[in-house]
Amino acid sequence: MKILRIRYPNGKPYLTNDDKKKPKNQLTKKKISYSNRGMTLEEDINKTNEYYLLSKKAVIHKKPIPIQVVNVNYPRRSAAKITEAYYKKASTTDYNGVYNGYYIDFEAKETKNKTSFPLKNFHEHQLSHMEACVDQGGMCFVIIRFSTLNRVFVLDFSVIKKWWSQQTELDGKKSIPLKAFEKDGYELNYSLSPRLPYLEIVDSLIARRDN
Amino acid sequence: MKILRIRYPNGKPYLTNDDKKKPKNQLTKKKISYSNRGMTLEEDINKTNEYYLLSKKAVIHKKPIPIQVVNVNYPRRSAAKITEAYYKKASTTDYNGVYNGYYIDFEAKETKNKTSFPLKNFHEHQLSHMEACVDQGGMCFVIIRFSTLNRVFVLDFSVIKKWWSQQTELDGKKSIPLKAFEKDGYELNYSLSPRLPYLEIVDSLIARRDN
Repeated sequence: MKILRIRYPNGKPYLTNDDKKKPKNQLTKKKISYSNRGMTLEEDINKTNEYYLLSKKAVIHKKPIPIQVVNVNYPRRSAAKITEAYYKKASTTDYNGVYNGYYIDFEAKETKNKTSFPLKNFHEHQLSHMEACVDQGGMCFVIIRFSTLNRVFVLDFSVIKKWWSQQTELDGKKSIPLKAFEKDGYELNYSLSPRLPYLEIVDSLIARRDN
Repeated sequence: MKILRIRYPNGKPYLTNDDKKKPKNQLTKKKISYSNRGMTLEEDINKTNEYYLLSKKAVIHKKPIPIQVVNVNYPRRSAAKITEAYYKKASTTDYNGVYNGYYIDFEAKETKNKTSFPLKNFHEHQLSHMEACVDQGGMCFVIIRFSTLNRVFVLDFSVIKKWWSQQTELDGKKSIPLKAFEKDGYELNYSLSPRLPYLEIVDSLIARRDN
């Protein structure tokens, strides 16, 4: 018979009295890692936003995916059924909301690339949207996850803008090197709750902008 | 042969030289009305938001309608076709964005009713969403159009909340009387561009809140 070990949500095993009787040095003493366990960046951010909402820290939501509905059936006694529809291009970013009086607007992207983030993952309209929001006093940034390295960074819009603009220059780079994230970005460490405490970094971005 | 009269976008006829030769007093001298010409409130607000975006006054968008996609076909050489999907209940309001440093969040509703606005047009989750946003320093309100009367009002969230809460009381009213809109709301007059200059009223709401 296989014994199923009960675990806390953070992955640490629940210790029964039997376990506790063992000498302490027999317990593995690894550094606890809350890092991504098969979750996508989107799932991590959604969970984080849920936490922020429930703890009254911020109201930030992912916008629904824009869909062009062409045909709808109305079967009797059931919900309207969409039978033909197409995905539309989003005209803004994925997430926005309000935090402590500030308008928050950001895009989240993942890459399997290990050394740089390809700029083709952004669209011109996302950049113009963020620029327009910054002009209105909003806080705009991107959250990028290097999924193979499992490292997550926050880059302020100003940094993204710089990299986006240089693309068209002679010898312009088509991607942002990891080193630039390490230098000009903020690394985001996974935690238990919230999973990706990105508002701590937003605090730093606000402090840097307003001071 | 029917002569098609060319009109300016505001509905005024384009005058040819022939027209101009007529004595002035023969031209109808009605007060120009920009009021709704078969447009829905949503269309009017979308046009207004477009104007605000282009004139760099604010960045406010309608959120896409949330749809739960169940089945997608990928026909060769064409776009992904959604063949089964259902409408989901929105968890927030319809519009949000940023204006002059302020987070803006509102819902827009129409009623054919002539004397009051039925509260059942709102959902509990929309009210809680707006309340959470106000707690974070956002500006929340509703834009209500009495379509039969063709009158549009802005009501601050605080007013809506008062009416929403009294519903459950003994003798609680199930709708907000037009008189309350006239007393505690701001009437919004149609103009040519933007069609519904609601940010002027937001300025008043901000002034009242911040002073």
